[in-house]
Amino acid sequence: MTERLSEKTKGVYIISATPFDDDGAIDYNSADSLVEFYIDKGVAGITILGMMGEASKMSTDEADAFMHYMMKRVNGRVPVVVGISDPGINNMARLAKSSMDAGAAGVMVAPMSGLKTEENIYNYFTQALEAMGPDIPVCYQDYPQSTNVFISVDCFNKMVRDYSQMVMFKHEDCPGLTKLSKIRQTADQDDSLRRVSILVGNGGLYLPEELARGADGAMTGFAFPEMLVEVVDLFASGDVERAKDIFDAYLPIVRYEQQPGFGLATRKEVLRRRGGMANAATRAPGPILSAIDHEELSGILTRLENRLKEMN
Amino acid sequence: MTERLSEKTKGVYIISATPFDDDGAIDYNSADSLVEFYIDKGVAGITILGMMGEASKMSTDEADAFMHYMMKRVNGRVPVVVGISDPGINNMARLAKSSMDAGAAGVMVAPMSGLKTEENIYNYFTQALEAMGPDIPVCYQDYPQSTNVFISVDCFNKMVRDYSQMVMFKHEDCPGLTKLSKIRQTADQDDSLRRVSILVGNGGLYLPEELARGADGAMTGFAFPEMLVEVVDLFASGDVERAKDIFDAYLPIVRYEQQPGFGLATRKEVLRRRGGMANAATRAPGPILSAIDHEELSGILTRLENRLKEMN
Amino acid sequence: MTERLSEKTKGVYIISATPFDDDGAIDYNSADSLVEFYIDKGVAGITILGMMGEASKMSTDEADAFMHYMMKRVNGRVPVVVGISDPGINNMARLAKSSMDAGAAGVMVAPMSGLKTEENIYNYFTQALEAMGPDIPVCYQDYPQSTNVFISVDCFNKMVRDYSQMVMFKHEDCPGLTKLSKIRQTADQDDSLRRVSILVGNGGLYLPEELARGADGAMTGFAFPEMLVEVVDLFASGDVERAKDIFDAYLPIVRYEQQPGFGLATRKEVLRRRGGMANAATRAPGPILSAIDHEELSGILTRLENRLKEMN
Amino acid sequence: MTERLSEKTKGVYIISATPFDDDGAIDYNSADSLVEFYIDKGVAGITILGMMGEASKMSTDEADAFMHYMMKRVNGRVPVVVGISDPGINNMARLAKSSMDAGAAGVMVAPMSGLKTEENIYNYFTQALEAMGPDIPVCYQDYPQSTNVFISVDCFNKMVRDYSQMVMFKHEDCPGLTKLSKIRQTADQDDSLRRVSILVGNGGLYLPEELARGADGAMTGFAFPEMLVEVVDLFASGDVERAKDIFDAYLPIVRYEQQPGFGLATRKEVLRRRGGMANAATRAPGPILSAIDHEELSGILTRLENRLKEMN
Repeated sequence: MTERLSEKTKGVYIISATPFDDDGAIDYNSADSLVEFYIDKGVAGITILGMMGEASKMSTDEADAFMHYMMKRVNGRVPVVVGISDPGINNMARLAKSSMDAGAAGVMVAPMSGLKTEENIYNYFTQALEAMGPDIPVCYQDYPQSTNVFISVDCFNKMVRDYSQMVMFKHEDCPGLTKLSKIRQTADQDDSLRRVSILVGNGGLYLPEELARGADGAMTGFAFPEMLVEVVDLFASGDVERAKDIFDAYLPIVRYEQQPGFGLATRKEVLRRRGGMANAATRAPGPILSAIDHEELSGILTRLENRLKEMN
Repeated sequence: MTERLSEKTKGVYIISATPFDDDGAIDYNSADSLVEFYIDKGVAGITILGMMGEASKMSTDEADAFMHYMMKRVNGRVPVVVGISDPGINNMARLAKSSMDAGAAGVMVAPMSGLKTEENIYNYFTQALEAMGPDIPVCYQDYPQSTNVFISVDCFNKMVRDYSQMVMFKHEDCPGLTKLSKIRQTADQDDSLRRVSILVGNGGLYLPEELARGADGAMTGFAFPEMLVEVVDLFASGDVERAKDIFDAYLPIVRYEQQPGFGLATRKEVLRRRGGMANAATRAPGPILSAIDHEELSGILTRLENRLKEMN
Repeated sequence: MTERLSEKTKGVYIISATPFDDDGAIDYNSADSLVEFYIDKGVAGITILGMMGEASKMSTDEADAFMHYMMKRVNGRVPVVVGISDPGINNMARLAKSSMDAGAAGVMVAPMSGLKTEENIYNYFTQALEAMGPDIPVCYQDYPQSTNVFISVDCFNKMVRDYSQMVMFKHEDCPGLTKLSKIRQTADQDDSLRRVSILVGNGGLYLPEELARGADGAMTGFAFPEMLVEVVDLFASGDVERAKDIFDAYLPIVRYEQQPGFGLATRKEVLRRRGGMANAATRAPGPILSAIDHEELSGILTRLENRLKEMN
Repeated sequence: MTERLSEKTKGVYIISATPFDDDGAIDYNSADSLVEFYIDKGVAGITILGMMGEASKMSTDEADAFMHYMMKRVNGRVPVVVGISDPGINNMARLAKSSMDAGAAGVMVAPMSGLKTEENIYNYFTQALEAMGPDIPVCYQDYPQSTNVFISVDCFNKMVRDYSQMVMFKHEDCPGLTKLSKIRQTADQDDSLRRVSILVGNGGLYLPEELARGADGAMTGFAFPEMLVEVVDLFASGDVERAKDIFDAYLPIVRYEQQPGFGLATRKEVLRRRGGMANAATRAPGPILSAIDHEELSGILTRLENRLKEMN
């Protein structure tokens, strides 16, 4: 069994795509190749069934089957985190238990859409955390651009105080740099408040700034995981300018993949072109690339290749 | 087999609650009694797995099992409509087919949250309708207060023109009276546009106005279905003032049940008190009545009883 | 000078419409008649330049001129509260000062649209309250259906603790009954927390329940202020069932006026028909009643008249 | 008098900041220096009182005074566009007329927040355009991230067909590249549909892709207008790879300024550091840079300087 998620978790946890064939069925051959692709790029862990994994479009059974398949394929080589967000607490707790039984390192939960006040958010997590029990490590996914649920640092810190299983903050509010700094500062200034792990999302669009402000790594689905790994490693070893040089080289495609909603189709296509999977299809309803989009992407990838050569 | 949904569908299609026990499991005994309760009150049809049915909190399997159970229990005495809204087109089409195979009269679809433009709404329905095929009658649920998806009459009419299976409009935008009138007027003025069935929601809060503007009935979950039935019948028979007297007598509880989100707990409690089901629990996360709420509800129900006596 | 807003404020503060002529200019003759209409109905105070007053569609100068005109017309007969919500703190503070100098009893502030977390709401009010200074009594308008800004009781209570000028809560969240009870309970259980005045909005749609839960009155624009006054008075004198009888008689029109956004046109038309003002026009862009709407409204008003006769 | 906005308008229209001093008053000396700064960088035009210009926080009089001041300072050297978005049609039309009388080239209008259907958007613009009359050229600002109003190409094209004064589309929906292509394609394929000018926003984050898809330039507030100018010019002259090299060099700061809401403070600080204005303050309520933010920005600017040197 791999290490469980904890306050000490570091590095790049890639958010895995879910490969589908043209009929919308899960393409398990591509699931195999994708796992090897990610591990080959040096990721510290893999997160499955996230928003980018199109989990909400899968049936309950499919999600469970895909989870078990991925756990087996990864086979303990790196920790696996499972996204379990669901409108029903029951379903959430069931998938959490099933995942941990299968050897997952922890689970990721985003607050349900429609939670309006921070009191509601706190109460919702109380229900979810108590349904799962204290032994399942939890990552709070703070992604209001998609959930439309907004939380202050005070409210998140209250969860950290009250629930020891809350060990990680997936940071992807935007603008969110001030929030990241405040989570770090409040924990630094208060011995009674645990310092949780912070991994950042948004495709890594603000990765250098976030690492400088105390993030421990990234949890996002950028189609060049090796960039995320290298930047995080270089930051850790103190070679910050080199890290930024690498980041800047990839920034045009980071930005391009970061188009809300639409970017998923781009990202799957890049993974396909790079051999990570055989089919770039998103499950319906999902974005589809036009001929212009394909050509535009090709241009960006060619420029990236040239720029990387130039830098060596 | 019962009549299928069509442009001619009329009357009260009650939206059924889904009964749960205290552990959150489906309470099938109460499902039995609820079916009898509804049929006993004279409803023309029953709609299951709607928003009020807490469908989004059920697993794929549970929803399918509940659908089959209810179909069997109703056993052709009235038509059954199945809510199939789901983030994934695949899941939606699968439940639609399964429901029709089991004898359903048609399906109800609300646009997926997150659809922003009317072009997006139209394209989403194109995908959904083509995945289901032309033989499944569809009701468009226009409930933007919950979905945050807004549609003009022009865009809905385009669907009616392009897809013959689009036979019903579940009207619950608010304010929405002008929209209802416009759907009727545009069809009246254009021979090439089918006049669809319109059933109204929102607990019937504007039922008299809506019937006067051309609605064919109601599809909502008000816990006194006999009021909806009587008002619709009296309107049909031309006794409009008596219909309004009845409606006004119930209005305090109509209004009270209509508190967004929270009203579901009230409605299930009323159904419990009236013998429709044994347990009023909502599945987590869901609203829970406090002692004050219970007492307040009792006061409203006592006054209703008195008012009804007074009127006879 | 009239009494200032305080924790002890009670009764009905009617939200005044702003009368416009057909060209959209302020109709000052109707402003005169409207003041007399309201005072004649027994209101305890008048609130001007609220959302219902179409304040956001007035220029800065117009708002200031209208405020001065109304202060002069009311002439100290009842307290006047001024809505000062504005995207800019400067403008807000300027109108607050100008209003208090002219003899206003206090000001009403809704949080700016776009505030996402409760930390942001608190910080926004800190800026606003400090710009106005401690001597201007403030009413917090909690109307998330319009502002899309949601606040927990804890965050509101923090403002009450930190700013002595925060003396009133205008309650119109929906569902909001639990929130109202919680504001009362938290103050009852904690001597260090002031018990603020709570006046309710939403056209009075839940007035009996709100008064039973501890509201001190209403601040809303229902076109029959005498109903609000009578219900509040009867509750205060303990004649609760009679209060509810009155309320229920008016409920069909309360409900009808409460159609979000659209209801303003109805309300102004009722005020016009009742002699409150000469022209029911809303300023563009605003709702406009169709012939069907006019007829529908007539029917509701006729039934109200009949019902009131029947009750006496 | 300068050229008026038309379908042929091209190049970079910089969105001007509004400089404030520490008390929140307009800093007119900085307005002078800012005009010179922009013209010196080679912009084709200047847009004032946009969202970035904090127009909604100015009083009606201030906005009018600032407009007149800027018109006089620019003094016909480049065309000036005036943002006139306002909740009231009256105010909007008044500022439009006042601006055109003062020599403006045209006006920019964003749809009012709260418009839900495309029918509502169309009707709103009908009211606005008819209030202004056919002689004032209008730019439609499509910025749903801020307005929460979403429009399809079909609805925009209908405005273009029905109102000859609709001559420009300010493109800043995101994802929005497909929309831009579709506006161009629909006009190319239909002789009866005018080809309008498209200038792009979002700080230029997708400028190369947008120019390749047929945009005529940019209308945005990026603090290095010379980059926008050079990229647009190089694209026009066919030197696309050089244009992308320049763009990529600036991309780290483009991205950094593009943090929603917060970016305004960064942008004003960059303008201050570059000598464009004496004070970077935003008017309350507005974002404020922390010490960490300042240092982070310095690092990004130093790297930009180095990268630009390296490229020459």
